[in-house]
Amino acid sequence: MDRRYGFSGGSAGPWLVSGIKPVIGASLDMVDRLEILEGEALPSDGSRWLLRSVVSNERYVTQGERRELRDVQQGLGRKDAVCAALIPIRKSEAWWALAQDERRAILEEQSQHIRVGMRYLPAVARRLHHCRDLGEPFDFLTWFEYAPGDAEGFEELVGLLRATEEWNYVEREIDIRLRRDPHP
Amino acid sequence: MDRRYGFSGGSAGPWLVSGIKPVIGASLDMVDRLEILEGEALPSDGSRWLLRSVVSNERYVTQGERRELRDVQQGLGRKDAVCAALIPIRKSEAWWALAQDERRAILEEQSQHIRVGMRYLPAVARRLHHCRDLGEPFDFLTWFEYAPGDAEGFEELVGLLRATEEWNYVEREIDIRLRRDPHP
Repeated sequence: MDRRYGFSGGSAGPWLVSGIKPVIGASLDMVDRLEILEGEALPSDGSRWLLRSVVSNERYVTQGERRELRDVQQGLGRKDAVCAALIPIRKSEAWWALAQDERRAILEEQSQHIRVGMRYLPAVARRLHHCRDLGEPFDFLTWFEYAPGDAEGFEELVGLLRATEEWNYVEREIDIRLRRDPHP
Repeated sequence: MDRRYGFSGGSAGPWLVSGIKPVIGASLDMVDRLEILEGEALPSDGSRWLLRSVVSNERYVTQGERRELRDVQQGLGRKDAVCAALIPIRKSEAWWALAQDERRAILEEQSQHIRVGMRYLPAVARRLHHCRDLGEPFDFLTWFEYAPGDAEGFEELVGLLRATEEWNYVEREIDIRLRRDPHP
């Protein structure tokens, strides 16, 4: 199974881009549409930027947490989940220089990243993509999908995460919002 | 800093290949020499195979273990460390499906991978390279360097690791042995 994905911003794709906001550091160019590419697929003509990534193994979630997550989460592609967000993030060298137990302690014991995300399940579905080891400008891309009625909950979730200790290690973050094209 | 490396087997490079032994699963073609490429460097003519990798952040080592490791380890490239080994490994899907705490428990609490490796420091220097997320045939490449007088210790180290619980999750392993060319 190919675990590689590309996110291409340009004039093609089923997702209409409603806004691109730089949260920390430099932004990406505004584009009309986003296309999600699988494996080695090439972007359509008119692509302005391409973020490559891979869905990898879990790095922090424990067996118990994973059981809880699986009990409550739902998949991507739900019919009513027409809102999406793509949030590319780069963390600092200081973060990557920490040992595994130090990163876990900041991420969960101090910041409750996993616990907070769980609170918004199943409404806000998400998939984490890794890109640091691919030599990309970001370390992670998180893709979120939710229904319009859950938009407020989604804003609350990103607000809570941005206020955590973990976010002190974020040195670049962009918030890209999208709507599924109703007339593709 | 570019963290990417390629290991090219062929007719070029400062390392003479003395043997390539398949430990589990299929082998790689025997070659005369090995060349270590940095970043995007291309292999010399006559390359028979190329293993791409990246040196990534630590995935299991705790803060305490890292302090112990740093106190005792020495770098690669020591003048008397003319023996080397390159050991490509692929682990099973069952391994990658485990949660972080389950993998850590097997790797260290049950198999003492970190603790055992530490016992052979500083004699056996090593660097772990990751390749699973690059879509390569192996998940890891470990590069070892040691002096001829420490060869017995090195054999003991790989023997101990191969007898661990962790190694039940190894589904492909190749053992490539090398000597630094004294007349490069």
